[in-house]
Order: sequence, then structure tokens, then C-alpha cells
Amino acid sequence: MIPATGLLLTDLYELAMLEAYHARGMQEEAVFDFFVRETPPGHGYLVAAGLASVLDALSRAQFTEEELDWVAESGRFGADFVDYLRGFRFTGSVHAMAEGTVFFPDEPVLRVSAPIPQAQLMETRIINLLQYQILIAGKAARCVEAAPDKLLVDFGLRRAHGAEAGLLAARSSYLAGFAGSSTVLAAPRFGIPIYGTMAHSFIEAHDDEIDAFEHFARARPKNLVLLIDTYDTELAAQKLTGLAEKLAQAGIRIGAVRIDSGDLGEHARKVRRILDDGGLGDVRIFASGGLDEHRVKALLEADAPIDGFGIGSKLDTSADAPYLDCAYKLAEYAGKPRRKHSEHKATWPGRKQVVRRYDADGTMIGDTIQCEDEPADGEALLQQVMAHGEVLKPRPTLEQARERLATQRRRLPPELRLLDASARYRVDVSDGVRALADEADALIEAQLRSGDGQAD
Amino acid sequence: MIPATGLLLTDLYELAMLEAYHARGMQEEAVFDFFVRETPPGHGYLVAAGLASVLDALSRAQFTEEELDWVAESGRFGADFVDYLRGFRFTGSVHAMAEGTVFFPDEPVLRVSAPIPQAQLMETRIINLLQYQILIAGKAARCVEAAPDKLLVDFGLRRAHGAEAGLLAARSSYLAGFAGSSTVLAAPRFGIPIYGTMAHSFIEAHDDEIDAFEHFARARPKNLVLLIDTYDTELAAQKLTGLAEKLAQAGIRIGAVRIDSGDLGEHARKVRRILDDGGLGDVRIFASGGLDEHRVKALLEADAPIDGFGIGSKLDTSADAPYLDCAYKLAEYAGKPRRKHSEHKATWPGRKQVVRRYDADGTMIGDTIQCEDEPADGEALLQQVMAHGEVLKPRPTLEQARERLATQRRRLPPELRLLDASARYRVDVSDGVRALADEADALIEAQLRSGDGQAD
Repeated sequence: MIPATGLLLTDLYELAMLEAYHARGMQEEAVFDFFVRETPPGHGYLVAAGLASVLDALSRAQFTEEELDWVAESGRFGADFVDYLRGFRFTGSVHAMAEGTVFFPDEPVLRVSAPIPQAQLMETRIINLLQYQILIAGKAARCVEAAPDKLLVDFGLRRAHGAEAGLLAARSSYLAGFAGSSTVLAAPRFGIPIYGTMAHSFIEAHDDEIDAFEHFARARPKNLVLLIDTYDTELAAQKLTGLAEKLAQAGIRIGAVRIDSGDLGEHARKVRRILDDGGLGDVRIFASGGLDEHRVKALLEADAPIDGFGIGSKLDTSADAPYLDCAYKLAEYAGKPRRKHSEHKATWPGRKQVVRRYDADGTMIGDTIQCEDEPADGEALLQQVMAHGEVLKPRPTLEQARERLATQRRRLPPELRLLDASARYRVDVSDGVRALADEADALIEAQLRSGDGQAD
Repeated sequence: MIPATGLLLTDLYELAMLEAYHARGMQEEAVFDFFVRETPPGHGYLVAAGLASVLDALSRAQFTEEELDWVAESGRFGADFVDYLRGFRFTGSVHAMAEGTVFFPDEPVLRVSAPIPQAQLMETRIINLLQYQILIAGKAARCVEAAPDKLLVDFGLRRAHGAEAGLLAARSSYLAGFAGSSTVLAAPRFGIPIYGTMAHSFIEAHDDEIDAFEHFARARPKNLVLLIDTYDTELAAQKLTGLAEKLAQAGIRIGAVRIDSGDLGEHARKVRRILDDGGLGDVRIFASGGLDEHRVKALLEADAPIDGFGIGSKLDTSADAPYLDCAYKLAEYAGKPRRKHSEHKATWPGRKQVVRRYDADGTMIGDTIQCEDEPADGEALLQQVMAHGEVLKPRPTLEQARERLATQRRRLPPELRLLDASARYRVDVSDGVRALADEADALIEAQLRSGDGQAD
């Protein structure tokens, strides 16, 4: 079977352009930037995420025989192009912001330098991987801003858009500071802590709710969490006193209860009182169901006695902003600066660096998008992570990315960390980059004028 | 490597419940329904999609040795549970609406009957596969409603949430009536027509736009589409007259131009005039960039001379409704009706059928959710598609699903096909189902009362 994440997971136009580059012998080095044009409304910053998966994709970029057979048999491409694809590898360089770096609109997060067919073919998958992980890391970081001291768990796999989204959401939300995910595969793949309780169906399959609790507790005594809202939340909470005594004799402790429906704050308050009155003051309350950063913040502002939150659909789909206005754009080819200047979509040409400045307290005060060879007055955020198609060692771990973001969030101006941030972080574009843009525009103007003559 | 779409792509609680069912010897037959609680705002109907992938997942459901090793080494499960998982297969039945069937809130689209551990473990992936494909088929059907006679192409892979979403979006949008997708892998996987032109980077990598067009045309002469908005849309259109003459000498025809930025309607009008004046009346205009069903409808209502649309980000993320309020709920266990009655989340118990009635003209007039054994006064929509873990033959093809939806859309009451549908289709719940619900509630009441006594 043709692999689901292989080189045919791309747009047809990438292969079409490759054949045209091949036909013309266009193999010179191209520089492409990935960047985001706008933050979603209310978001004060973006979070770099997804680099690890992009590097994996570039390292593995090779057509399988089955893929080549399809290309050959599709009738869409010439025979020598198939031979050319057989030798296709990614041999270029990548410079990127480390995962967990906060960044802002128009800043290149990742720069690919490679012979143009290589840099071109990988476009679709690079955007596909980076956009989603940046989205989820940003959304999850907002949940952490809303509830910095609570246990947050990604519950979104079922409503994520397919398998890969569910898996990557677990990683991106952990990177952003979540305690873990309900997605089992995230543990073997990424070493992420996983969490799980029981579903309503488990309760309903028993004739008696309290029997269901007891059976579950005896079968799975560790980290015991009981789901108490299947029928009557407070009634279930009341029954736990008796059950807790019975379980204690077997050395089993009820760790927490989960509430998944109704007015979560109101139920949590009543359940907290029932548990406290029943001598179960150490049983924690975990809430889930329709949550996002705004709802979590509102619950905590209303002093709901909730110790942890399972956040699912709205996290894994980034429901209020399900896609980013982002792009992967040519900045240089064959040593010349290049830019598009379609309306509202102009891009900055050349090999760029993003340099960040801090005040005396270590708070970020502004970034500059500049040419790579302009002197850096601050921290250079883009670092080389791949050379000649090989990933440079050591590769940062997911834990390091998580720590990096935690540190960076503390260094952000506080107004950018609000859930309804309206402040804009200062991002300058250097004179060097502006000069390159003028140079690129002059090249365009010259050809448009000459083309004019030709067509008339 | 542990497979990305294997049985560990599930929520931890599924495995936890399995271990508890195993510990108690709970293996009796459970019946679970998948259904959607609400249509997204403005949507008049839902479209069944994703069944083929669910059946594939059920057929393949088996733990690999690597997965079992992880389960054993995770320290989270007992040793005999690992042995039990080694023998895990899906041996149950599935009844489902055929792909391409229109359906409505609360109607079961898919019913799984199997020993409870089997039906339970598959919950997460069943929801993950069905929700997304129903979402995209519905969104794409709306695009088709907006532009029934235009060439619609899915352009969304790069902004889809990961690899699988991009691939499944191609299939779901084709099912809904799209002409095809830009996603190459959709051709070998699903036999879907694929479409592709060129990116701005191709133009920019050339020193001259018109050279880029000519090089591309000579390398890829078939179905030639030129992207004309990199620098100056109308200027590029003007240059095409000369180019077309030159290419004609080589037997190459410009099939279409693509416009991807700016005011698409305004550009299309100007470009149409330029092309017509230049003798290129048969060159079609294809538009892309930020489109959805509303924007397409507005362009066509304003008589924009656009022949086809590439619809990307907003389709593949279902941007205005990125997830569905849907569920997979226990309806029966061990021969007894079961239901949850958490606030606002009550479900209908028992083995159900959905029966559809039509008027004399063949227009749909109402559905009834009824017990499977109640007499059907109309078309029974749920059909058995899997028995004893085997998919029943013949399996409907994607083309049949596409035709089915096209037919069903014509039989819908017209007010439900509006993009801002506010009418509700009539869905009744039979007396038989209501009686089962009462029976299930009586069982619940009895145990809640007995549990009461126990806890006091």
C-alpha cells in the first residue's frame, strides 16, 4: 500500500512543477520561508511547534517503488521524470526556531534552503505539519494561561480531524504545558503521560452504578477516578462515602471524581461539599465537557472547586480558529531575492534572521526581521537544525521544548498573555531586508515592462 | 514502529474499561449507536460518510506484538490482560446508513453490536473517523449547493489537520459532488480525479513571468492552467494572447487561468474581457483563495465569470463548524435497554432503525426512529454491512455513494438545501422506543433508590 504520509501526500502542482523544473534543468538553490501572517483574534503570541515532525519528513523523503509505479502508470508524467524521482532525496539545509519559541506574524519560523525541486516538493507537507501543531500549541498555551496551577489533560482524539491530528494534538498540548493526554499512542510515541478514567457506557453496562464503581476500582485500583454524572451527580457523590470505606479495607483510594455534564461549576461546588462532609476531602474533582480556555477561566474566576480539566473538541480542532493564515514562500532563487507581490500577500525576500531584544528584567521588548548577514543586536532565533539533508545533533527533546515555552511565556509582556490580547508586539523589518525587497521589486518591474512589450 | 492508526490510537479509558470488563468476565453483547446531536448552524441536513474506513478499521482490529509489548511494559495493566489483548478481534455486527445518505440529528447512522469489550475499544476511532468525514461531506455538499454547475476542487491538504484529514477530505468532498482534489494520494487510494496547476514560487523562480508560463506549458502541455496573479493579474492576462499563438504552433492550448488573490470577482471580470478581446474566449477562469460556500455563492450571484473554484482551508477544516456534537452511546447490554440521562445528554435505548417516508413526488417528508422489530412504514435506512466481523459483499463503491447523495439531495425539501436553512426536518421517535426508554429509566430509578439505601 502507498504510504499515507509519503511523498504522494502532496498537491499535484508540486509534482507538476517538479517535472517542469526537471525539464528546464532548474536545480539551483531556493530559499523558502514558513511564516504566519496573522495571529488568531485575541491571541497575543504564537508558539513554534512541529519542527521535529518536519525534520523527520525531510530525512525520510524518498519515493517507494509503489509510489513510482503509480507515477509511471498514471499517464500524467514522462518516463524520464519517473527515473528522476527515483533518485529524489532531500539534501538541503533547514534553519528554524526551536520548538517552544514564542513568535509573531511575518517572522520566518522555518527556512528551507535546497535545490528548488526539493524545497518545492516538501511545501505541502511542511505547511500541513507546522500549521496544525502551531495552532494547537497556541491554543493549549492559552488554556495553561487560564489555569496555570491545574491539571490539564488533552481529551480531544475522538473529535480531532483524523488519526494524525489526534496524535499531534497530544504532543503539542504537552509541549504547551498540559500534564498529558488521554491518547494512549502518545505515550509510546512521545513519552507523554497519559490519563484515563471510564466512560458512561461502563456505568450503564452495570445494573447498578455503585457496583460499576466498585468493579472498576478493584480491577484498576491505581489513580482511581470515578465518573459520577451518568444519572445523578450529587446522588453518586453521596454514595462514595460508603464505597470509600469498603475500598479502603482493600487498600484502594478514590483519587478523584469526574463530572462531564451540566453546570460544571455548580455541580463541583455541591460535590465538593458532599465529599468534604463525607470525610473525602482529599478526593479531587476533575471536570470535562465542552471546555476551552475561556470556559476554564470563567469557572476558576467563579471559584469552582475544580482541580483538573479534560479539554477535548475545542482544543484539538482549535475551534475558534481552525486554521492559520500561514505560508511557505520563495525568498531567494539562484542567489537573487524573490518576492510575490499579489495584493495583500506581499512577502519579504532574502535569507533572513529574527533577532529578539530583552529589557534589563529579561522581558521581551521587540524583534527584528533582518538579513542573515546583518549584525544581530540580540538573540538570533533561527538556528541551523539540518545540513546536507542530515538532522544536526543533539536534537532538542520534547521536554526541552516544553521548558523553553514555559520560560518564554514568563518573559512575554503580560498584556500579550491575556486571553483577549489586543496589544501588538513590536516587530521591525530591517533596512537590509527592505533594500532586498526593493531589489526584488526592481527585477519584477523590469520583467513586467519587458513582458509588456513582448505581448503587445 | 507502533502503527499510527492501530489499536493504541485510542483513549486510555477504553483500555482501562476493557481490563475491568475482562476482570469481571463481562463479555455479553452490547449495542452502541453513533449519532449527531445537532446540525451546525444553517445546515439543513447531514451526510453519512466514513463507513468504509470504519469497516476497514474493524476488520483490521488486532494488536501487533509491538503494541502488546508496550502494554506489558507500561506497568499499567496486568499480565493476563496482555494475553487477553493478544486474542482480541472484532467479531461483531454493524448496521449503518450507506455513505451518501442524508440524515438528521439523533438518528443512529451506525450501530455496532458486539461483545462489550470489542464495541467499547473501537469507540474512539469510530468517532474520530465518522465525525470528520460527516463534517467534510456536509460542508462540501453545501459548496455544491452553492455552485451546482461549476468545477469544484478540494485544495485543502496543506491546511487540513494532519495527513489523514487531508486525505479523507479529498474523499469526502468527492463523495459530496466535487470534481476532484489537488491531493495526489487521493488518486491511487480512492480513484479520485486530481487537479493541479502551479504555485507562485514557480513564477518567481523565473526571471520573467511569461518565460515561466512558456516553460511550464512545454513541460506540462496537457490540461494547462496558468497562475496569473503573482505580480499583476490583468497584465499577465494581456500577455497570454502572444503566448497562446506561440504555443498553438506546438499544438499546446491554454486551458484555463487561475486567480488566487485580490477581489476575485473583479479580477475575473477584467480577465474575462481581456481574454475574450484577445481571441481566448475558450480559456476558462479558475479562482481560489479564502473560499467557502458563502463566498462562492456571492461571486456567482454577482455574475462573476468564474468557471471553477479551488476550495481549501475552510473546507478541510470545516472552518465555521470544526466539530460536530456527536456521540457513540450504549443502547443495550445483555439484552436490556440502556441509556444515559445526564442533563441535556439523554439518549434513546434499544436496537433501532430509521425509517424514511416520501410523498407522491418522491420528496422526503419525515423519518421515524423506531425499534428494529417495529413494522417499517417506509425505507429502512440502516442496513447490515458487517456480520461476525466480516464485511458483507458487495461493498458500495465511492461512485455509488456519490450518486446516492446526488439523488438524495434532489429528494430533500428545498428549504433544507438553503445555505441558511432554518427549517427542521421532521424526525419522530416511535412509541416502541419511548417504551424502551421508560423501561431503561425504571431500571435506573430502581438502582438509584437501592444505591441510596446502601450509601446512607
